[in-house]
Amino acid sequence: MAHRFFRTAKATDIVEKLVTKLVYEHAIIEEGDRILIAVSGGKDSTILAWALSKIRPTLKRNYTLTAIHISSDFCACCKKSALEQRLNAWDIPFVDRFVPIIGRLKTGKSMNCYWCSTQRRLELLNYATEHHFNKLALGHHLDDIIETFFMNLTIKGTFSTMALSMPYRNYPVRIIRPLAYLEEQQIIACAAEQHILNNMCTCPYGMRSERRVMRARIANFTHNSSAVKRHILHALLNSPVFAGNNKESQG
Amino acid sequence: MAHRFFRTAKATDIVEKLVTKLVYEHAIIEEGDRILIAVSGGKDSTILAWALSKIRPTLKRNYTLTAIHISSDFCACCKKSALEQRLNAWDIPFVDRFVPIIGRLKTGKSMNCYWCSTQRRLELLNYATEHHFNKLALGHHLDDIIETFFMNLTIKGTFSTMALSMPYRNYPVRIIRPLAYLEEQQIIACAAEQHILNNMCTCPYGMRSERRVMRARIANFTHNSSAVKRHILHALLNSPVFAGNNKESQG
Repeated sequence: MAHRFFRTAKATDIVEKLVTKLVYEHAIIEEGDRILIAVSGGKDSTILAWALSKIRPTLKRNYTLTAIHISSDFCACCKKSALEQRLNAWDIPFVDRFVPIIGRLKTGKSMNCYWCSTQRRLELLNYATEHHFNKLALGHHLDDIIETFFMNLTIKGTFSTMALSMPYRNYPVRIIRPLAYLEEQQIIACAAEQHILNNMCTCPYGMRSERRVMRARIANFTHNSSAVKRHILHALLNSPVFAGNNKESQG
Repeated sequence: MAHRFFRTAKATDIVEKLVTKLVYEHAIIEEGDRILIAVSGGKDSTILAWALSKIRPTLKRNYTLTAIHISSDFCACCKKSALEQRLNAWDIPFVDRFVPIIGRLKTGKSMNCYWCSTQRRLELLNYATEHHFNKLALGHHLDDIIETFFMNLTIKGTFSTMALSMPYRNYPVRIIRPLAYLEEQQIIACAAEQHILNNMCTCPYGMRSERRVMRARIANFTHNSSAVKRHILHALLNSPVFAGNNKESQG
């Protein structure tokens, strides 16, 4: 895509183009798909839902979209009615599912991000399976993918990151990440253009501090350069690290 | 190897242990090898020559060592006689070969690091082939390997770096890098312990500025942590990125 486009286009057009490009290049949406979108109420998953609805006429593929929100016993801030209204405007049915994340903790265990995300993921997979969805769309973007890559590299000593598209061994569901070509700043700009940036839900636990530290280090290392991030993405896309398609998760 | 060893041992012992460990784990030195060591006169290749000579009794393998120095028409600073004396003390014959690096430049072309390193490498490979050496040992260390990895990742968008051991398609010679487990600071400490640090040759062109920038960024990104560097090495060793053994160079 021409560099000029990225310098001059509106953020909503950039998001639409890059999601369409990814969907075409990696065939992550197919005819007849029943796609469940995990919406937290935050900017990323909201823009994901908007984009998947927006590109439907262009893609010329029949697929259904449903959004699911996991409510929990520790977060009451979510502007659910605003979220539901938006999704309805985009022609996406909304499901709210309650999970007692803290309530499920065993005695003596304290709340942490790993526990929460595992409980949510299980709930999403169970719901998708019960209701015959074959794809689960998540709102991770390029910065999330690069961050995970560097965390795994420097903390675990492995080359791995979130896959673009990944089947599960124990569920008839494939995870897809249609925002993988987008930088966080492009998503923020898109949400700002749609005037939905200031009405978002954020987790009361905030970003894990180790992620926050890594994010700052990466910003420094890459000088926040889009070109550098895209070079890293290019390397990931051309390596088994990111293939994911062949790598099943047990989850 | 115990962390206590690294905290308390002398640098010379650390270098000896880590070179031995690498040679055993990756079988880069075999019975009957005729090894040509490329010595620039700098700290890395000098310590490489010292280490390969020092570990010979421990390895219990018969191999010969010869050191070759490429003299050129742009660098007269090298303390060749001191280098030769050291190598002789370590029982390593010394060969000096002159290459007109600037003299080989085509009209209108200016001197640069890529040209110089290509001319040197060709000379080394030709000499090794003519004199029936089957291994060419180079003094690249862990920091060089990580630096090259990050430069290739962020500038070229590929996962690749210097291999531990690599055959050539057009020469019956295999390149080996016995210092790959060592950080530069460990090599500097080893050279200091042997009182040879202040009598070294350095290239008058200095380090390429892009390498210098990358080195500073990596130091910041890893917080100069040995643990982080070793995690990156672990990932490299367990991935095709670094395998090299199966990847031939046309050089």
